[in-house]
Amino acid sequence: MAKQARAIATREAIIQAAGMVFSDLSYSAAKLSDVLREAGVTQGALYFHFESKHDLAVEVIKRQHETTWSASEKFLEADMPGIEALVMISKSIATQLTGDPVVSAGFRLTTESANFFPESASSPYITWIQTAERFLEKAVAEGDVDPDINIPDTANFVIQNFTGAQFMSQSLSNRQDLFERLEKMWNRLLRLLVLPDRFEKFADLPVKSRP
Amino acid sequence: MAKQARAIATREAIIQAAGMVFSDLSYSAAKLSDVLREAGVTQGALYFHFESKHDLAVEVIKRQHETTWSASEKFLEADMPGIEALVMISKSIATQLTGDPVVSAGFRLTTESANFFPESASSPYITWIQTAERFLEKAVAEGDVDPDINIPDTANFVIQNFTGAQFMSQSLSNRQDLFERLEKMWNRLLRLLVLPDRFEKFADLPVKSRP
Repeated sequence: MAKQARAIATREAIIQAAGMVFSDLSYSAAKLSDVLREAGVTQGALYFHFESKHDLAVEVIKRQHETTWSASEKFLEADMPGIEALVMISKSIATQLTGDPVVSAGFRLTTESANFFPESASSPYITWIQTAERFLEKAVAEGDVDPDINIPDTANFVIQNFTGAQFMSQSLSNRQDLFERLEKMWNRLLRLLVLPDRFEKFADLPVKSRP
Repeated sequence: MAKQARAIATREAIIQAAGMVFSDLSYSAAKLSDVLREAGVTQGALYFHFESKHDLAVEVIKRQHETTWSASEKFLEADMPGIEALVMISKSIATQLTGDPVVSAGFRLTTESANFFPESASSPYITWIQTAERFLEKAVAEGDVDPDINIPDTANFVIQNFTGAQFMSQSLSNRQDLFERLEKMWNRLLRLLVLPDRFEKFADLPVKSRP
């Protein structure tokens, strides 16, 4: 049993180390020797758990999906308006991207090197758009959003904004300004999304008040 | 003279081939042997013009900057409102990104592998934000945009939208839907940017009318 617990801990250390390496380097540039060094494990231990760099990257992507998805489920079930949930989940994903190397690595692998992972979902964007659609449908049902909007187009627009904020923040500030960017982004998006007579309802959301 | 003309043609063939390779593969994954095959030149010819993969990538980035910058200058000097110029330049860059491998490669290198090119500008986003600021200042002077807006924040927001559209289009449709995405994007952005009483002025811009 102690042996099994140790194996689980080693596997976890390897995944976390892979998160560090794949979030710092492109998939092609990353080397298994970098992961070994970061995890402090032997090559034998790594190959006991993972067949290849590809196998390890696929596990990182799977983990990232689980982490992000469980956060989104939590907000969909939470007792809060769909619009508020949409704002909160974007901040929750930003927290994961800035604080959890496995999430950051999964994001980088699937957006930058997606062609290496055809067996993963075609793109994380698909899942994100579908999630945004569910929140927008909820917001329409709650009367906060115009029922005549095109839900798929609007969901695409929201995710497009988040994607742009993420990439620019990564490039310009190593994600240091991601939360500030999201606040400014929501300040503008809410003016497009929320019906004017429902605007007051979201006055206390943590988004900057001055455009 | 014939020899010099041939040297120039060879150098150009190498740059174009590098554009193909660096737009298809990450900087780390791309190999000089891929460029040789694509260009149909010998290793000796390549090393006569470029010292290394890095040297070649820097030339591709330089070319991309020149191409994109000259388009932006053209629109800034053109006799059209700043808002219209902003829409047109985004489409012009989309045309370059979808039709000119050197531009597509320069974009990929500077956004994805920027850490390999510290001697290039810190990020193409800086230049783009500055360009958007100039167009927005023009639009304010022309009375189409609220003079109280925060110009740098608004420029950031516009570029953030373009960036998101670009990355999502690349991932989801290999840039096939880029123009459609831009039209839908501008349809929403114009409602945020343009003063209501000036809206009619831009009714004929090629942006989808239904949000």
